[in-house]
Amino acid sequence: MEPKKREYVSDEQLKQYFPDLPTGKLDDYRKKASFDWRRMKLVYDDLESIDLKHRIWKFFEETPVFKHADKSVSLDEERHIAIKRMYSVQNEAFLPIDKLVMNPQCYEAETEAMFMYDSSMTVKLSLTFRMCSNVIRGNGRPVHSQILDDLESGEIGGCFALTEVAHGSNAKGMRTTATYVPEKKQFVIHTPDFEAAKFWVGCLGKCATHAILYAMLYSEGKNHGLHMFVVPIRDPKTLKPYPGVTVGDIGEKIGLNGIDNGFVMFDNYHVSKDAALDKLGGVDDDGNYMTPFKDPNKRFGASMGILSGGRVHITTISTAYLQKAIVIATRYSAVRRQFGPDDSSEEMPVLEYQQQQIRLLPYLASTYAMRIFCNWFSEAHVTMVINGYAGADDNAANRGVEMHALSSAVKPVFGWAARDGIQNCRECCGGHGYLKAAGIGDLRNDNDANCTYEGENSLLLQQTSRWLLSVWAARGRINPADYPYGTLTFLNGADKVLADKCRWSSTKEMVDPANLVYMYKWLTAFTLKQTAEKTERLKKAGKDDFQTRNETQSYNAVALSIVYGENAILNHFYKTVLEFEDVKCKNVLLKLVSLYGAFILEKHLATLYIGGFLSGSQGVLLREGILELCAAVCPEAVALADTLAPPDFCLKSVLGQSDGEAYKHIQSSVMTYPESMSRPAWWRDVIHWRTYVPSKL
Amino acid sequence: MEPKKREYVSDEQLKQYFPDLPTGKLDDYRKKASFDWRRMKLVYDDLESIDLKHRIWKFFEETPVFKHADKSVSLDEERHIAIKRMYSVQNEAFLPIDKLVMNPQCYEAETEAMFMYDSSMTVKLSLTFRMCSNVIRGNGRPVHSQILDDLESGEIGGCFALTEVAHGSNAKGMRTTATYVPEKKQFVIHTPDFEAAKFWVGCLGKCATHAILYAMLYSEGKNHGLHMFVVPIRDPKTLKPYPGVTVGDIGEKIGLNGIDNGFVMFDNYHVSKDAALDKLGGVDDDGNYMTPFKDPNKRFGASMGILSGGRVHITTISTAYLQKAIVIATRYSAVRRQFGPDDSSEEMPVLEYQQQQIRLLPYLASTYAMRIFCNWFSEAHVTMVINGYAGADDNAANRGVEMHALSSAVKPVFGWAARDGIQNCRECCGGHGYLKAAGIGDLRNDNDANCTYEGENSLLLQQTSRWLLSVWAARGRINPADYPYGTLTFLNGADKVLADKCRWSSTKEMVDPANLVYMYKWLTAFTLKQTAEKTERLKKAGKDDFQTRNETQSYNAVALSIVYGENAILNHFYKTVLEFEDVKCKNVLLKLVSLYGAFILEKHLATLYIGGFLSGSQGVLLREGILELCAAVCPEAVALADTLAPPDFCLKSVLGQSDGEAYKHIQSSVMTYPESMSRPAWWRDVIHWRTYVPSKL
Repeated sequence: MEPKKREYVSDEQLKQYFPDLPTGKLDDYRKKASFDWRRMKLVYDDLESIDLKHRIWKFFEETPVFKHADKSVSLDEERHIAIKRMYSVQNEAFLPIDKLVMNPQCYEAETEAMFMYDSSMTVKLSLTFRMCSNVIRGNGRPVHSQILDDLESGEIGGCFALTEVAHGSNAKGMRTTATYVPEKKQFVIHTPDFEAAKFWVGCLGKCATHAILYAMLYSEGKNHGLHMFVVPIRDPKTLKPYPGVTVGDIGEKIGLNGIDNGFVMFDNYHVSKDAALDKLGGVDDDGNYMTPFKDPNKRFGASMGILSGGRVHITTISTAYLQKAIVIATRYSAVRRQFGPDDSSEEMPVLEYQQQQIRLLPYLASTYAMRIFCNWFSEAHVTMVINGYAGADDNAANRGVEMHALSSAVKPVFGWAARDGIQNCRECCGGHGYLKAAGIGDLRNDNDANCTYEGENSLLLQQTSRWLLSVWAARGRINPADYPYGTLTFLNGADKVLADKCRWSSTKEMVDPANLVYMYKWLTAFTLKQTAEKTERLKKAGKDDFQTRNETQSYNAVALSIVYGENAILNHFYKTVLEFEDVKCKNVLLKLVSLYGAFILEKHLATLYIGGFLSGSQGVLLREGILELCAAVCPEAVALADTLAPPDFCLKSVLGQSDGEAYKHIQSSVMTYPESMSRPAWWRDVIHWRTYVPSKL
Repeated sequence: MEPKKREYVSDEQLKQYFPDLPTGKLDDYRKKASFDWRRMKLVYDDLESIDLKHRIWKFFEETPVFKHADKSVSLDEERHIAIKRMYSVQNEAFLPIDKLVMNPQCYEAETEAMFMYDSSMTVKLSLTFRMCSNVIRGNGRPVHSQILDDLESGEIGGCFALTEVAHGSNAKGMRTTATYVPEKKQFVIHTPDFEAAKFWVGCLGKCATHAILYAMLYSEGKNHGLHMFVVPIRDPKTLKPYPGVTVGDIGEKIGLNGIDNGFVMFDNYHVSKDAALDKLGGVDDDGNYMTPFKDPNKRFGASMGILSGGRVHITTISTAYLQKAIVIATRYSAVRRQFGPDDSSEEMPVLEYQQQQIRLLPYLASTYAMRIFCNWFSEAHVTMVINGYAGADDNAANRGVEMHALSSAVKPVFGWAARDGIQNCRECCGGHGYLKAAGIGDLRNDNDANCTYEGENSLLLQQTSRWLLSVWAARGRINPADYPYGTLTFLNGADKVLADKCRWSSTKEMVDPANLVYMYKWLTAFTLKQTAEKTERLKKAGKDDFQTRNETQSYNAVALSIVYGENAILNHFYKTVLEFEDVKCKNVLLKLVSLYGAFILEKHLATLYIGGFLSGSQGVLLREGILELCAAVCPEAVALADTLAPPDFCLKSVLGQSDGEAYKHIQSSVMTYPESMSRPAWWRDVIHWRTYVPSKL
């Protein structure tokens, strides 16, 4: 988890990408800032990632199909736009593989730029081309090279069909079957009933021609478990489904409606034996099952490994959404004035109100913590995958285990932080935040998917806690090399830390970054200990493993994984900031570390008392410390938002534009909304309502 | 706050309204319940309110314009449907005034039935007809009787224009003017610029012919403050705006899109002097200002009194949304199976998982607490208003003050409980909860408005805290008669309670309803004391009133109003349950009181430590108590949801139907979604994408 060393970037280079912001209503706050908003970008970006984002946004701004619509369009039109945008972007090839290998951070930058503009298009791009290619590359054989070429050239379009109607989380309960018929050298794919239909499959609703399908492999009457197949769904020349395939669209969702999520059922559908992506296990021509793994669970685990990439990806997606929301709400709070001191005729910006600050500024700090973490995390994951292809990592197994545990913890932490942060931003914008043109509602609706897909949050957290429980007993004998991402350092001297008590008596000490890091170490160790002890107690009382796990979920295992994830994020944030060269930026960032750490720790304040770390009214110091930090960060807030902001056309919010002219943008938006000022076509139904209401006779 | 005495209702009478539910997948849970789900309804309903809701839902079910659409329709079509539904309902006159006077609870029942079916239509109904009539009746003179008749007969349609683009909360900052011209006996209404345009006005976008307009009254060069006028906007025969009026629609919102929220600007628009609703203050023919109030703030307060009805109303609206969400999530969690004990081939309903229980069941308990409270609250408010018209209440002023404070506290508490509860329901439904057809996303989007309209939540809470701070010093001398709703009883012996410490050492004692009520009394008194002391400290340090209020918002004044509201809800819930006759229902309800009380108290656990009420690991008892209560409520959960559930067609969720056949309803929904299985019209753009992507040359 070491912060990245970056090359020096000059002010001139930065100004080429980021011209001066328009002067106006935000000037006062911008002048108050103690640092350079452009240089601040370098705490998470480098020149290459900045350049990539710049090129992508420029392309969007200049390409007609990326123009914003005047008003919401139909579901069908949303899909149509998403597909046209997707092919346009794919055709640009912004990030060729050689560039990616040279600078894996660019992967994250690309994701960020695209998700900030159009999340549906970006998901489709990733599913149609990349995910399928990755799966085939990792699990296929030479015979699949043609299909790989066709995918990558856009001749065909893929999708990833795992989830069934009645089984999502419990992958082992899937019921789609692939039965091998040696006489024909074919598999027969079959869906027993609608509950086993593949469902939620992104890009399958209208477009995909091929699916990566997970099905139970049967051969010689025996079920060999879940295996992957690449299965033709629709004719790439006509987009009509093949006989034996019932495929359709699952209709509207809460958000992400540009994605054509679909369902598919197979009626004894025959496919060639080569459909099997069987590098990790499968049948030979005669139907004999072979696998390089001795333990079938290991094969299953390896075949599901692709999903951890999805979780890492979601940390970036959640951050991109929150980042937009916090920019909108911060800027608008700085120009929105309401009430004021008794002796003043001038109203005060709502950002100056304590209750507005405490709802916004901790999320502004969170956005920095998350942006810094997910950039590192995405890069670490891409590096792991690349090294995996190259066989270059001798610590790959340990890396994989820790990555799995960490991603299962931080995906929920990020998804929920974005959920709560976006909601606070929405409410902090008052009534106007409820306008669709404010842009926050769509962010919430898109982010909502992050809380349940790629593993429902509460369930994922339990995967992490199982692993943490397994290392608790060995806490004195941890070998750092076995945990290459360093997320278990909180176990160093855990017993000694747990015997410690709070020795601080001022707000300043209480929110000092190093002390917060120390308290998080205590909290993580304590929550693990508490969960381990409850587990022990229940087992002694005769409960089996399943019952014990069930009865240690809430306040224990789930809380444990959350604090473990938060601990990793906080530590990485602090380390990164300590190493940042720009002194002015660093001073502000240290405040953000304090604010972030204190804010997330406050949610666990009761646990700090329960475990005896705090006593008396010490908790008040933490709360007062948060309020003081909010007041200290307030003058920096607009500049901090400027650093995070995408270009105005990408932000697309009447409230959050960089000129601070929220009311003018509202005016322009409502005045030009189609038919805003015209009489409705159905005006007679208002006046002559008696002609159609049900008769009372 | 006394619970209502109700007449006996027989099982036969109940069965007439509530036939047996379909047998099937929910049977197991239904059999586990220890009480009669029909009788449980009587803890908040009586036969008359049941009958009214039944008639309303039957009308919706049988009337063509209320049929659900197959898919989302355009904004224009949403408005069209809302208006047709609105007039159909108005024509039915479900609740004539004489019935309302006889049983004020029916007002709440009507609101509940309508909001559960179509919130946009219901808001429009209330704005177009009722709110305007109420305002005119309360503030108009005999000259306005014609306009009242026209409103009530639907010849014209009203709206309520208070909020301006740049001023919402701070009503005194409004800038629309009404200047009296004695020569013409007219007012000139004028909007200086777009920031002063009336904005967010419901029903103004497309339909309203008249507006209740708030404007600064100028006469003889003097500003007499904000006054009400009834102003013609559009010709009732053509729906075209009058010259001098610029009126339009504000476009799409996050939710409630059936409502045509609008804006209006006036360009020196002349209206008759009779436009003034000047019972409480206005000018005579010569322009001399007269008012029965000596203190202009009192006149202003009285003219804004109408808004407290809105806050009371919102408690009912939030409850209706949460109620639907909790029914959907509870039923689906009972039929959705995933994983299971190691030795079992059968998967377990997800409702059996602890983490699912703790996310759902406290909100199930909250829904009962809220339903019971808002029924009482709505009735209390309607009674207050009716008595006000009749001049029958000699305690009216005290009632008004306490109602204002209480409604300003519970409106946020309800809105946020619904927000968080709905979100938990959404996530507890896993991936399928993200389907629009699950119905939860729309509930969230509609409820979202409750968090900022009729007073932004955080701001409202500070109105309550100012009042509470004003009574703190007098806590030993409180006369119960001055606080007729009894919400200040927590001050009885506050100093003695505050000196107390927790004496309980078991989970059972910790979550005993009486003990929870006691702890809430402690918590409310402590939070008030803490806020009062911080206020004192800041004033001594030389801060003025405005600064002091600002710096005591977070963790103090805002938290204070929340616990004051929660305290009132919890106490009313407990009292009502204690008096409920049915023993089996009562036993379950007592568990819900415990679960609700423990759940909301747990959010303030750190404060219980900070104030010294708890020490050591006592907090664990509360948390373990919550888990035990969840396990105890789990077998009752489906029947508790059945009690709360509206008819299936009104619930309108593929996941929550009473037959428990979630997957069949999903199947039916996706298979019949328009064009679900057909090829998109734009299929060629998938295959021939190279023909339109930007050239790379």
